[in-house]
Amino acid sequence: MATTAISGAAALAAGLVKPTGLVTALEPLAHAPLPRFGDLVFGGHELTETSLIKRAELLAGEHVLPPSLPEAVAESLRETDANIRPGVSMEVPSKSPMDTIHRIQEDLHSFRSDHALSRVVVVNVFSTEPPADPHPTHSDLSSLREALERGHTVLPVSSLYAYAAIDAGCSFVDFTPSTGARLPAMEDLARERGVPHAGRDGKTGETLVKSTLAPMFAARALLVRSWTGMNMLGGGDGAALTDPHRAKSKLESKGRGLEAMLGYDVESPVRIDYVRDLGEWKTAWDRISFEGFLGAQMRMHFIWEGCDSALAAPLVLDLARLGSYAHVCGQKGALAPLAFFFKDPIGTEEHRLDRQFTILCDWVSGLRR
Amino acid sequence: MATTAISGAAALAAGLVKPTGLVTALEPLAHAPLPRFGDLVFGGHELTETSLIKRAELLAGEHVLPPSLPEAVAESLRETDANIRPGVSMEVPSKSPMDTIHRIQEDLHSFRSDHALSRVVVVNVFSTEPPADPHPTHSDLSSLREALERGHTVLPVSSLYAYAAIDAGCSFVDFTPSTGARLPAMEDLARERGVPHAGRDGKTGETLVKSTLAPMFAARALLVRSWTGMNMLGGGDGAALTDPHRAKSKLESKGRGLEAMLGYDVESPVRIDYVRDLGEWKTAWDRISFEGFLGAQMRMHFIWEGCDSALAAPLVLDLARLGSYAHVCGQKGALAPLAFFFKDPIGTEEHRLDRQFTILCDWVSGLRR
Amino acid sequence: MATTAISGAAALAAGLVKPTGLVTALEPLAHAPLPRFGDLVFGGHELTETSLIKRAELLAGEHVLPPSLPEAVAESLRETDANIRPGVSMEVPSKSPMDTIHRIQEDLHSFRSDHALSRVVVVNVFSTEPPADPHPTHSDLSSLREALERGHTVLPVSSLYAYAAIDAGCSFVDFTPSTGARLPAMEDLARERGVPHAGRDGKTGETLVKSTLAPMFAARALLVRSWTGMNMLGGGDGAALTDPHRAKSKLESKGRGLEAMLGYDVESPVRIDYVRDLGEWKTAWDRISFEGFLGAQMRMHFIWEGCDSALAAPLVLDLARLGSYAHVCGQKGALAPLAFFFKDPIGTEEHRLDRQFTILCDWVSGLRR
Amino acid sequence: MATTAISGAAALAAGLVKPTGLVTALEPLAHAPLPRFGDLVFGGHELTETSLIKRAELLAGEHVLPPSLPEAVAESLRETDANIRPGVSMEVPSKSPMDTIHRIQEDLHSFRSDHALSRVVVVNVFSTEPPADPHPTHSDLSSLREALERGHTVLPVSSLYAYAAIDAGCSFVDFTPSTGARLPAMEDLARERGVPHAGRDGKTGETLVKSTLAPMFAARALLVRSWTGMNMLGGGDGAALTDPHRAKSKLESKGRGLEAMLGYDVESPVRIDYVRDLGEWKTAWDRISFEGFLGAQMRMHFIWEGCDSALAAPLVLDLARLGSYAHVCGQKGALAPLAFFFKDPIGTEEHRLDRQFTILCDWVSGLRR
Repeated sequence: MATTAISGAAALAAGLVKPTGLVTALEPLAHAPLPRFGDLVFGGHELTETSLIKRAELLAGEHVLPPSLPEAVAESLRETDANIRPGVSMEVPSKSPMDTIHRIQEDLHSFRSDHALSRVVVVNVFSTEPPADPHPTHSDLSSLREALERGHTVLPVSSLYAYAAIDAGCSFVDFTPSTGARLPAMEDLARERGVPHAGRDGKTGETLVKSTLAPMFAARALLVRSWTGMNMLGGGDGAALTDPHRAKSKLESKGRGLEAMLGYDVESPVRIDYVRDLGEWKTAWDRISFEGFLGAQMRMHFIWEGCDSALAAPLVLDLARLGSYAHVCGQKGALAPLAFFFKDPIGTEEHRLDRQFTILCDWVSGLRR
Repeated sequence: MATTAISGAAALAAGLVKPTGLVTALEPLAHAPLPRFGDLVFGGHELTETSLIKRAELLAGEHVLPPSLPEAVAESLRETDANIRPGVSMEVPSKSPMDTIHRIQEDLHSFRSDHALSRVVVVNVFSTEPPADPHPTHSDLSSLREALERGHTVLPVSSLYAYAAIDAGCSFVDFTPSTGARLPAMEDLARERGVPHAGRDGKTGETLVKSTLAPMFAARALLVRSWTGMNMLGGGDGAALTDPHRAKSKLESKGRGLEAMLGYDVESPVRIDYVRDLGEWKTAWDRISFEGFLGAQMRMHFIWEGCDSALAAPLVLDLARLGSYAHVCGQKGALAPLAFFFKDPIGTEEHRLDRQFTILCDWVSGLRR
Repeated sequence: MATTAISGAAALAAGLVKPTGLVTALEPLAHAPLPRFGDLVFGGHELTETSLIKRAELLAGEHVLPPSLPEAVAESLRETDANIRPGVSMEVPSKSPMDTIHRIQEDLHSFRSDHALSRVVVVNVFSTEPPADPHPTHSDLSSLREALERGHTVLPVSSLYAYAAIDAGCSFVDFTPSTGARLPAMEDLARERGVPHAGRDGKTGETLVKSTLAPMFAARALLVRSWTGMNMLGGGDGAALTDPHRAKSKLESKGRGLEAMLGYDVESPVRIDYVRDLGEWKTAWDRISFEGFLGAQMRMHFIWEGCDSALAAPLVLDLARLGSYAHVCGQKGALAPLAFFFKDPIGTEEHRLDRQFTILCDWVSGLRR
Repeated sequence: MATTAISGAAALAAGLVKPTGLVTALEPLAHAPLPRFGDLVFGGHELTETSLIKRAELLAGEHVLPPSLPEAVAESLRETDANIRPGVSMEVPSKSPMDTIHRIQEDLHSFRSDHALSRVVVVNVFSTEPPADPHPTHSDLSSLREALERGHTVLPVSSLYAYAAIDAGCSFVDFTPSTGARLPAMEDLARERGVPHAGRDGKTGETLVKSTLAPMFAARALLVRSWTGMNMLGGGDGAALTDPHRAKSKLESKGRGLEAMLGYDVESPVRIDYVRDLGEWKTAWDRISFEGFLGAQMRMHFIWEGCDSALAAPLVLDLARLGSYAHVCGQKGALAPLAFFFKDPIGTEEHRLDRQFTILCDWVSGLRR
């Protein structure tokens, strides 16, 4: 997804492609003074050593990128490769938490100064973590700081990144269902440091459709009796989710919202399965059983065959642009108006896509530097 | 559909069933002083002679009505049967247009006086007519009147009904794609007589879902490349639509809206097929081909298996209640805020379901007697 | 399923219904001298106390039986109720294995003598057991007998039933994925006693379609790359399969066959989910990804919405009739030619439905008393 | 399709690809002494002037051919281009029928002698013609000859080609639903000339699946109540079928078989729609409504998303190889054992895919030079 986002931003900056899939290219967002694609500089943490250009070529082979794109943006990808540093693995957080936070912050500081950047937005697109064990320090910033300084591993890696970013004055976006900044103490840190954050878990497929269709059943007073969902993923994300602990985060994130949108409890099992053959693609199948006037039993099925990168990458660019602009405009703490982008939005119970879009547009229109 | 609506209203008045599928049972509409179910009196024009109780039993056999319902509301159905008069067939409009209009109006007047009704709402649920041939009198009320008085057949039967109803001070709702009141001259008549009208073509299946999903693609800047729809209908409506002239009305009505919602032209063939075996049920299948970031080609399919009566009948009751209330509140002419109910709404280009729902709620909340 | 089979047999005997779904009603099987429906007498073991007539009424409410059927066959159901005895629960096999076997055999003997039956066929339609732990006695009849006599619990309940039935000279059919007679020692017992047995796991939905479609891909040299299946079940069977140990038996049974039919290994995850709302119905969804000439990547999806009882019950009757006839004709041991009915057939690797049907027809045509 | 077949044969001859999709690569056909791919020489009649290499590049852009294939087989495609002559358009058969036949035959003779070929197989892959008007000469070879010599246009273009080919001693295969050799007089001609012919209409998608699934419903005694099919095609074939006269041929060809396979009449509407956006791909959607034991109503849906060329091209190669071999082995007239390949097979009422495959294998195994 990162490779697709970076390649796409380069292609957009060069005017090679249309901004399909980019929400910030739509009115009224297109009129807001967001950073331009040519002004964005990418860097990051990565666990593997495959170069961006190599990854872009693989994606072209899977029909995710146009065949000629990797070569067209090769220079840009090589420049970005120079900004990539080794990431912190969730399996082996080898150092004390504060050491890890400091190492991340050093990389953030160098990146900012090397490129003379006005602002940095950190977007978490790592693979999904298991849900974090609750801990009392999660709701008290000073206890949290103390625990970290004493070397206690009270935070998962995603939250170490969130801490490092926010503490360094960078806005933070969680595109995954991991814990990240979704802790009361982290909200306090963000308000203290005056930076905004957003999340979590990009809404790109089944949940996107769910948050579109559920309001239809509600507005027509049709009673949803069960909503069964099956998700098949290939690629790295699918493989990561064969671990039931990690899948738990995803399933929890997917499960939210239906009750909020319908106003009542619904039997709604959701499954995720890894199908290696799908590669960069994913298929979701949902069956909705509903009741109409006088108890008539009806059904709807939908099948969604999407390309994860092509759906998620433009949203990552949207969020980087919006996160930066919100920062400029003095927003701090959780950005509830960005709920439109997320399965499990922070700071709001509004899951209906259309309402989320209205809220997003109104919010961006109302922001002032 | 009429049988289901009448049986359902009786069951609701008796407290036998929940108001599933009734939009006017939802907040904030449920708080508006709409006519209560027990206050509604039904009558109508009908071409066949099957009694309502017989029809209700047939519907129970197709699982449209609960098995015990026909007997539970038998008395109410028998009372309504007494209010049913022979209808005007579109095949054989045997008399001059003004004679037909007068005959309809006599029935309306008797119905109103026999039951001491405050207001009458005429809802067209006849089978679909072919599109009317355009005629200059359609846009000029006085020419239209003159032509009708001279015995010229410038109006299809649905419009004779609309004329008769509006001219007699009854509000008119077109639940079909027929011409009905959708002519400038008819709008003038409605304004002159001080009555509201609404239409057209109840949005109960494929188009309902389309008007829900298309805004999702738009809000996510995903480019819809083709949207193919196939509708299979059993029952009388399906049989009527095997006539390509009548199907034309339906297809035109279904075709509107996609461009308006997406903002660009889309290849969007729609088909209707009669499948006798489906009986009271209908199946729609849609395939949406769309393009994401950097041109990735993706697809969505949906299958809708609905019961036409169970979807449409509560909307007929909603429209009767809302039409009456709008009349009380002094509304006249086309009721654009009722677009939520229709495939091809009069007086507005807003096809997005969610926006239509907001507009409906705001409008009802703002009405005052 | 048992209720549906018994009600259906009564209705068939009385000439009230057509033999839809009965394979033995098709040529050439219809010409074999199988027991007639009016000659069948039903009895059984049951864990709950709900009467057959009550169950039949519930099934009519779910549209599984015609509304008028329960009353029409009430007498027959009452007679059968008198032949039902308490079953042996797999949760609480309270006695020593031999005591259990003897208790089952007593019931079998009484049933046979009370009704002066020529032959008895025992069909296992209990809910699914977890896979049995392997044990050395499973492949040696005399060790098995010794272990049972010493009170060792080396057999699951389904196999105690199989042992009891076969040892008592009754043919045995396993319609579930449980262990039943599928052990070498049990095959020896059947041959020793001169009785036939068949199984296992009735092929009624997803696997039925799989065993039909897979040969198509093979015969056209299309390379199946992945075949993903999702099964949603309501009812008792679905609830039982929320236990992952029991589901394991089902999944293993469903998983067999694809490689045998295609001739190569395929990524083919299968899932089972319980959706209470489905009641007596089940939905299967399969997605087949396949490769054609020059590597073109293609896809097929299918959705199967079936009523478990309506699919399985006639096969239970078919198997009772065929099991009895095979017994008369002197067949003993595993009946491989009945593979047509099973997901995981004993005694053969032929999973292709069409070939299985040919084999079945040839076998029945060739049997002689 | 022709481009894909020719490119594929070159790639197979060069050992660049696996024979996926080729039925003649399966046992036992793979052991028959069929012509090898390297021994095949391609030529043909074509209405447009686009070179094969250009077409191959376009197909690679639609993911029908691997990206590198056009270049890898460029030499072979250029050699074939030299063997392509202007075709006879069905719109403008400019000359007298006999002149047309002679012109076709001259090209066939030159092709045969220029390349010193042992045998020539003519395969019709032109776009679909409307059904031919019946004519008395169609069932009498001498009257037909006389009419042709007198310049009467009693044959459609596809049949002129069939006549020319057969009369010139070339075997003829009709891969389209056009009339071709499907006339009694043509059968007489083939027997007179000692050449075999086969057809018609390659079975590559919806009908392939239908001929696989229908026998399942039959073998399980499940009563099919309706079978509705919708086909969406892009590409040239789709565009041609927007002409209802041509579509008629296709629909007739698709409609055959269901009754033959099930043994009773079924409501089975089939539709074809052109969706330009689909390009070389086609989607079929079928809904099967069926009845089980005691009248339970069930449903199955399938969606087939195939690439027409990737499915059809290998069959064209199979048919060329088998047509040649049949010719060598002295077969003449209609080749009923090739029914496996066709929607509307000549000389047989066997539509069941599995039985057709058995018949094909047995026939090939039995042929002797």
